[in-house]
Amino acid sequence: MQETAVEIPAHATGSVGDWVAPATMQALVKSRAAPGAELREVAVPEVGAQDVLIRVLAASICGTDLHIYLWDPWAQGRFHPPMVFGHEFCGEVVAAGEDVKHVRVGDYVAAESHVVCNACYECRHGLQHICRSVEIIGVDRPGAFAEFVAIPEQNAWVTDRRFPPEIATIQEPMGNAVHTALSAPLAGSTVTVFGAGPIGLFAVPIARASGARKVIVVEPSTYRLDLARRVGAEVAIDPASQPVVETILAETGGEGTDVVLEMSGNARAIGQALRALRHGGYVSLLGIPSGAVEVDLADGVIFKGATVQGIAGRRMFETWYQTRGFLEMGMDLRPIITHRLPLRDFARAFELVSSAQSGKVVLFPNDPGE
Amino acid sequence: MQETAVEIPAHATGSVGDWVAPATMQALVKSRAAPGAELREVAVPEVGAQDVLIRVLAASICGTDLHIYLWDPWAQGRFHPPMVFGHEFCGEVVAAGEDVKHVRVGDYVAAESHVVCNACYECRHGLQHICRSVEIIGVDRPGAFAEFVAIPEQNAWVTDRRFPPEIATIQEPMGNAVHTALSAPLAGSTVTVFGAGPIGLFAVPIARASGARKVIVVEPSTYRLDLARRVGAEVAIDPASQPVVETILAETGGEGTDVVLEMSGNARAIGQALRALRHGGYVSLLGIPSGAVEVDLADGVIFKGATVQGIAGRRMFETWYQTRGFLEMGMDLRPIITHRLPLRDFARAFELVSSAQSGKVVLFPNDPGE
Amino acid sequence: MQETAVEIPAHATGSVGDWVAPATMQALVKSRAAPGAELREVAVPEVGAQDVLIRVLAASICGTDLHIYLWDPWAQGRFHPPMVFGHEFCGEVVAAGEDVKHVRVGDYVAAESHVVCNACYECRHGLQHICRSVEIIGVDRPGAFAEFVAIPEQNAWVTDRRFPPEIATIQEPMGNAVHTALSAPLAGSTVTVFGAGPIGLFAVPIARASGARKVIVVEPSTYRLDLARRVGAEVAIDPASQPVVETILAETGGEGTDVVLEMSGNARAIGQALRALRHGGYVSLLGIPSGAVEVDLADGVIFKGATVQGIAGRRMFETWYQTRGFLEMGMDLRPIITHRLPLRDFARAFELVSSAQSGKVVLFPNDPGE
Amino acid sequence: MQETAVEIPAHATGSVGDWVAPATMQALVKSRAAPGAELREVAVPEVGAQDVLIRVLAASICGTDLHIYLWDPWAQGRFHPPMVFGHEFCGEVVAAGEDVKHVRVGDYVAAESHVVCNACYECRHGLQHICRSVEIIGVDRPGAFAEFVAIPEQNAWVTDRRFPPEIATIQEPMGNAVHTALSAPLAGSTVTVFGAGPIGLFAVPIARASGARKVIVVEPSTYRLDLARRVGAEVAIDPASQPVVETILAETGGEGTDVVLEMSGNARAIGQALRALRHGGYVSLLGIPSGAVEVDLADGVIFKGATVQGIAGRRMFETWYQTRGFLEMGMDLRPIITHRLPLRDFARAFELVSSAQSGKVVLFPNDPGE
Repeated sequence: MQETAVEIPAHATGSVGDWVAPATMQALVKSRAAPGAELREVAVPEVGAQDVLIRVLAASICGTDLHIYLWDPWAQGRFHPPMVFGHEFCGEVVAAGEDVKHVRVGDYVAAESHVVCNACYECRHGLQHICRSVEIIGVDRPGAFAEFVAIPEQNAWVTDRRFPPEIATIQEPMGNAVHTALSAPLAGSTVTVFGAGPIGLFAVPIARASGARKVIVVEPSTYRLDLARRVGAEVAIDPASQPVVETILAETGGEGTDVVLEMSGNARAIGQALRALRHGGYVSLLGIPSGAVEVDLADGVIFKGATVQGIAGRRMFETWYQTRGFLEMGMDLRPIITHRLPLRDFARAFELVSSAQSGKVVLFPNDPGE
Repeated sequence: MQETAVEIPAHATGSVGDWVAPATMQALVKSRAAPGAELREVAVPEVGAQDVLIRVLAASICGTDLHIYLWDPWAQGRFHPPMVFGHEFCGEVVAAGEDVKHVRVGDYVAAESHVVCNACYECRHGLQHICRSVEIIGVDRPGAFAEFVAIPEQNAWVTDRRFPPEIATIQEPMGNAVHTALSAPLAGSTVTVFGAGPIGLFAVPIARASGARKVIVVEPSTYRLDLARRVGAEVAIDPASQPVVETILAETGGEGTDVVLEMSGNARAIGQALRALRHGGYVSLLGIPSGAVEVDLADGVIFKGATVQGIAGRRMFETWYQTRGFLEMGMDLRPIITHRLPLRDFARAFELVSSAQSGKVVLFPNDPGE
Repeated sequence: MQETAVEIPAHATGSVGDWVAPATMQALVKSRAAPGAELREVAVPEVGAQDVLIRVLAASICGTDLHIYLWDPWAQGRFHPPMVFGHEFCGEVVAAGEDVKHVRVGDYVAAESHVVCNACYECRHGLQHICRSVEIIGVDRPGAFAEFVAIPEQNAWVTDRRFPPEIATIQEPMGNAVHTALSAPLAGSTVTVFGAGPIGLFAVPIARASGARKVIVVEPSTYRLDLARRVGAEVAIDPASQPVVETILAETGGEGTDVVLEMSGNARAIGQALRALRHGGYVSLLGIPSGAVEVDLADGVIFKGATVQGIAGRRMFETWYQTRGFLEMGMDLRPIITHRLPLRDFARAFELVSSAQSGKVVLFPNDPGE
Repeated sequence: MQETAVEIPAHATGSVGDWVAPATMQALVKSRAAPGAELREVAVPEVGAQDVLIRVLAASICGTDLHIYLWDPWAQGRFHPPMVFGHEFCGEVVAAGEDVKHVRVGDYVAAESHVVCNACYECRHGLQHICRSVEIIGVDRPGAFAEFVAIPEQNAWVTDRRFPPEIATIQEPMGNAVHTALSAPLAGSTVTVFGAGPIGLFAVPIARASGARKVIVVEPSTYRLDLARRVGAEVAIDPASQPVVETILAETGGEGTDVVLEMSGNARAIGQALRALRHGGYVSLLGIPSGAVEVDLADGVIFKGATVQGIAGRRMFETWYQTRGFLEMGMDLRPIITHRLPLRDFARAFELVSSAQSGKVVLFPNDPGE
């Protein structure tokens, strides 16, 4: 992004030194085990000794939030109402617990949504992103669709104020895309992204900036295919009207794609991905299928000598540094942020997310104005 | 293997300098598109400019040979009778084409069975083992269940004569096990091998010698489970009588296995493997499923951040050097070679292979016999 | 590069099917063990069974050629006059030996300059670029500062005709830069290039296109620092007037540079590189020091947990594919090609190379000229 | 080690639940900026909120301790007397701060000696072992040559009681050897260890257990060469009487060694290592040279395409898990522990360490004594 084009909202630079926490706040609460959510006044979260309290400046909506909102089977098995949800956000630190060491009141921060134990095998191997005792903000503990949220200091990612809240908040899902993309060797490679939801869209400029020779996107929504082209996809395939595997092979000189970034979770897409993959190619799986998937392991993985990598979360915090690097390089992700709404318009926001007529949708819980 | 225990057969050391090729030889020919094969007299192969002719001292039987012998659907689609089959072998070089540069008449050699093009994308990336124009000896061109076989010089692997023919010949399938095992980080790891056919059995001492902390084997044949224990498996699980996933979890302190070496191609085993896998674990797939497999990618691969690697053939020739290294270290694989037969007893040999009452079965085409 | 801007010279597209080789050709011969070289008429090279004969359309000058021309101690120990030199080139295949399989007469090709044995440990490990029996074209066997050159088919890299000869020829040194740069993780990294000769200059856009967050160049020539800025260096440090280590630290927020690409071979630069390196950083060494170098291994490598990678040649042919990928992405290296001269102006060309007042200098042996 | 051979000292299993800390303890104090140290009564350390207090059961002596004891230039620049030193140890947790979450009173623990910040770039990249704000126990904060030591919970490594204190304490230096060895690919490789001090000696069985085909040791002390042979070195070279490079080349069939583990810090050894290295080989540097070293980067690193890796500390905590794995496999390191002494015999212990007539020397601060 061009620095001159960035407008820092006034509330992002205000002094917070003499700030006193209010007793209550407006928050979007998943109040019952049923579809929907309601905006209501709840207590401002308490701040533990190792926690920071953040005034939320922006909170973007993830597919997971939609599952919770719609109350699908996954949400029914995982989420325990009543609780505030939302886990992609940024804001200002307005209070800090007594053991907080590095983050300071007044810092402008985004957040890693995985609260990890620091003690399990994975955490002690530099693999906190797959901590087996993970708690996710807004899923397992109160979230950020609210004026305030409390998180462990460890989860706060201090961000440069030249990046406006709508960019700061999307560092978390952009991090998913960075983690997925950089798990395969990209320089000089052809890269095919299956699924052009926000994370798939983020992956397009990330792959290009990392040396991908050509980026191909497969996505059934015309709206999103257009977005994909706008952010750099050279080939945009609509699986409803174009032969996916044949087109990818034609676009790669018959070799197949070097790298697949699977962001759709769609069983059919996974099958196409493996058929269109080059021998010795790489598949990074981020999209979550809703059930078991029939996979042709023999021809798709074994004979090809393929490498399939499951991707969860973001590496803590390698991915955050890389994400910051891409932003500092001037990567402009604003075309992917298609809608910006005050928190009170959450119903319309969730409608937009559930349609495929949006990129990333960002809510502003502290937006003063109507 | 202990060097003192090795008996070098007389024919392995004889002079070959004044040798004249006979016109015909005994060979096991897959003569018709039907089950079975027949031993008959055929022409000795011609030797191309870049080829060497090998007098076969031992030829071991692979599962692929059984598919051809039984004439299963895979064989029907790939193999074109009449042709000699067999692709695991060793012998002496008795003649060399005019452009042969490094291998010499008299050399004792084993063979890489993949004849590669040296020109495709994969071959030009150090990935000859997944050459897209590969021809396999004994499958796509005449094989080694015969007194003589001709192969490109590039495929001949000069072997130290202190290793007897039954060991020299199994370098090829042992190489599959080495390639599979060394595709994951083994030092300090728990390793679970699914399927204790010959390659799975080879993988046990290879994993142990590479630093595996504990090797677990899952295999339904009691005969093969016993063999697995003999070559170093600490835990041997019979899936018919023991809960596979629970036992692996118990044996790994509840963490799950660090590494899976999948040698069975069995869909149920693959499911168990993914459930028993540690977060961040590695799965190397060598066994070929007979059809598409239902895989729980979400819980088994994605949320775990697992790495799944398809394994084909042997790296040319990293794997061969590593295999040689293990043999030179004194790894004793003879317990896995359960049957040694002259070529004329091929029918009994294939019966043994099709039962699970054998490890590796080796044929001797030039056995002076009774 | 923009395709519309490329001019294909007429002689690059002419039919060669009915071509008859002349007996002699003009060539730049290093005729005596003394400085200089002379243009004279010599026999056109013979074409071996596995060779192709190339009509040279462009041949660029490497630092190695300057060593040979100036007859420095290295050249005196390695080069055996009289012989044609020159090893960066491209041209048209005008004849092919009888065993040539994949390259065809009429193909437009560049050349890998390392002729390898295909049989040593390194060659059999996918490491042909460090073959211990390597012969270098134009150093150990006749080279390309001539109208024609014969090379093994294996060394010919078929190139798309949309890239003009001056670009096709520099794929070889650009490959050095690609190999060096891609040996370290670049995405999101700060990268410092020491030495802005042609290879260092190539490395700047390569690093940027591979995700480098910031590229810093250290180089004493003002001419070359300007070129470095033109091709994308954000920071250009003149070590004569600026404190190198301090500037790099300041430009990296005090962390140090993530990656060093050492293209200078200068002992002082190597010391600065290690002091300016981040903990856990990567150093790729391509520049050849003229003697042993004093290195602070304790503070510069060990305590930092640094990785130092020696870089020789280009990976055969991973690097060539990656190089092609960058060109296909539209990377424009023409600003780095500062001088284009007919072969007969070789004396002036070598003067330009020995000054630091040039980037890459390209000769045209078949230039129809005035 | 064989479990049956392990004797658990009575004091390692005593109940500690009702324990009350004494006010003072015996400790080896570096009391003045001069050679030597003195045993005296000092206050038992205070236990911070995130700390555990450990009753020291064994504390082994590292080369760093000798530097401090002898008060060499490095120690003069880093260590601030008066302070207790010693950083390799194990013991029982006798008290825990209020924020301690995972370690419990009564646990038997060894210790990672690097106290890290958890907040710097390196710590947030899974590279805590090269934390730029590291404090080393016994160097930068009070150490373990004492009856008690307090350390952060994060640094305590819970150990199985079947490993006696002399083994538990050496997990820290053994970890250096594990980290160094496993930084290179070992399976099937020839490995040369330069320097057979305790860490070099540990590296011998570690390399063998990780698949090294042959382990060569270079060491001037006859005493230590004998130890190296006892723990598995097949070739033991005395550089005073044998040509180092030629012997290594002869032992590797002229190829050179695949891997060098440099544990000596000796400039001459480093030169020999690079000359004896195979093309494409790996060098892991752990030994700290006392000053800058002249290195032939051209022939030793660049033309060879070598990888040189600086090694500091132990990966936190991958290395500790791997170390535990080797111990659980039954690796017996007791031959390397040559001397066991009560803490009061520290003077003799340091004499032993400064001679080359010892392997690892272990002190017992809580030894009930005679």
